[in-house]
Amino acid sequence: MSLIVVGSVAFDAIETPFGKTDKIIGGAGTYISLAASYFGTKPKVISVVGDDFPQEYLDLLEKHDVNTSGIEIKKGEKSFFWSGRYHNDMNSRDTLVTELNVLENFDPQVPDDFQGAEFLMLGNLAPTVQRTVIERLTTKPKLIVLDTMNFWMDIMLSELKTTISMVDVLVINDEEARQLSGEYSLVKAAKIIRAMGPEFLIIKKGEHGALLFGENEMFYAPALPLAEVFDPTGAGDTFAGGFIGYLAKMNDVSFDNMKNAVIMGSAMASFTVEKFGTEKIQNLTQEEIYERVQKFIDLVKFDHSINQ
Amino acid sequence: MSLIVVGSVAFDAIETPFGKTDKIIGGAGTYISLAASYFGTKPKVISVVGDDFPQEYLDLLEKHDVNTSGIEIKKGEKSFFWSGRYHNDMNSRDTLVTELNVLENFDPQVPDDFQGAEFLMLGNLAPTVQRTVIERLTTKPKLIVLDTMNFWMDIMLSELKTTISMVDVLVINDEEARQLSGEYSLVKAAKIIRAMGPEFLIIKKGEHGALLFGENEMFYAPALPLAEVFDPTGAGDTFAGGFIGYLAKMNDVSFDNMKNAVIMGSAMASFTVEKFGTEKIQNLTQEEIYERVQKFIDLVKFDHSINQ
Repeated sequence: MSLIVVGSVAFDAIETPFGKTDKIIGGAGTYISLAASYFGTKPKVISVVGDDFPQEYLDLLEKHDVNTSGIEIKKGEKSFFWSGRYHNDMNSRDTLVTELNVLENFDPQVPDDFQGAEFLMLGNLAPTVQRTVIERLTTKPKLIVLDTMNFWMDIMLSELKTTISMVDVLVINDEEARQLSGEYSLVKAAKIIRAMGPEFLIIKKGEHGALLFGENEMFYAPALPLAEVFDPTGAGDTFAGGFIGYLAKMNDVSFDNMKNAVIMGSAMASFTVEKFGTEKIQNLTQEEIYERVQKFIDLVKFDHSINQ
Repeated sequence: MSLIVVGSVAFDAIETPFGKTDKIIGGAGTYISLAASYFGTKPKVISVVGDDFPQEYLDLLEKHDVNTSGIEIKKGEKSFFWSGRYHNDMNSRDTLVTELNVLENFDPQVPDDFQGAEFLMLGNLAPTVQRTVIERLTTKPKLIVLDTMNFWMDIMLSELKTTISMVDVLVINDEEARQLSGEYSLVKAAKIIRAMGPEFLIIKKGEHGALLFGENEMFYAPALPLAEVFDPTGAGDTFAGGFIGYLAKMNDVSFDNMKNAVIMGSAMASFTVEKFGTEKIQNLTQEEIYERVQKFIDLVKFDHSINQ
């Protein structure tokens, strides 16, 4: 099924206890579309870059069957740039630089041949920009998934809530769920947030996995315990890409299939953290993905006849 | 199979945002043996109380088929007493009072008719006391499980390591695993700790579940997301009791059966937090336990044909 991905395509510069990078390809749109590309979905990206953005990075996406024709190239402007430094435990980071550049006045256009897409993944961006894309679609997608973060809750809560009310699945982390709902218990938080509009809620808990909530249904996907986390950048976006990519491939938005999609997203994210930036998810084989998913299956498998 | 439980039988006084208790029955030995009692194991408790300890509390244990003949009653002395106050998020607490009393010079005796037990659960106590019990057993048990905490790592690390080297399963939480190993990654921590002696390691992560590590094997048990945590006191001890109780019932110490036992421990612990102290686990039915375990099964169940 046809999939549109909206999100930043940008430069990142990353420091971790294991080393640092120069400006490399980054951005939510990049991670999401690369991850989704492994599910045969040929993601159509809507984004914007400056004319400083190397053609080779766009070629890299095209090589993965990512349709980059919806990535506007703004002459005389610079691409979005983020730089951060991770602490020793890899669970927290300091932002060193955020240069919005082309994102400051991003007016997302939907190419004609993108219209009619069944799946829409809105990566983290201003909620007003995310909403504009929804409004510019001539056909309502079968499923809209929204990723956002605490930053927008802090400065644009009302706009964010309007956008949240228009989507089917919201993806946030545990702290954000608590902030958005005002409830510490994630079960209570989920109830409040689902009442804001989304039928489904995914709460990401980093190294502790992810929770999927539906109507009277709940699913706990573990994260794979790893000996080494090399660089967490993009893990959440990769999760979202694997999630929507699998759903689009299966063309099934039932709760049961979403459980599988959460496992797939978790598996894809577990690759991202193994190398800097997109390095690992640029070169995955289907065999590697198969083996990784098998690890998730084995990790939680126990004898259900325990209850007899 | 026969099970010996070593641990405090004591008074607790608890404050949570939901209310406070007077002195009620508490202690690791109490929670462990109550939880284990639901698996038909007739736990034999080794502990010590003062003559201030009400007969009705011992009767309560006996009513659950807990053998209390190994609980020494010290004339003219007072029982161990702990009092604590939980913070609003229920994830942290302040200790208000700790009166060791009878525990200060606890010299654990093993009654003759306790000898020959196949399973030994060493609840949190001074590692020297835990070791004394091991040394006073005439037959080496099939399985020894040890629970301990950071307090002993701080003040008695060398003694603790000696005791750890003598057991089969160590149960600690994530912070304690990091402290004991000096490694942040739980995968690395598990490797280091298992090299200290225990063939198996359980790392409890509170609301994030528990990890079981064996030789080249790993299992992730979720915790059940709860709308309300009323009182976390004793949850870890209840987990241990459900874990060893199930193992003793099945008389199977394979990694596969330990996975089931971790689920059972998690299910039992999820009851404890629903009411103050031991209130909830004093009156469980097999039907309630069955239904709770089913929730754990459903929580992590997904279609393993995802990988086809």
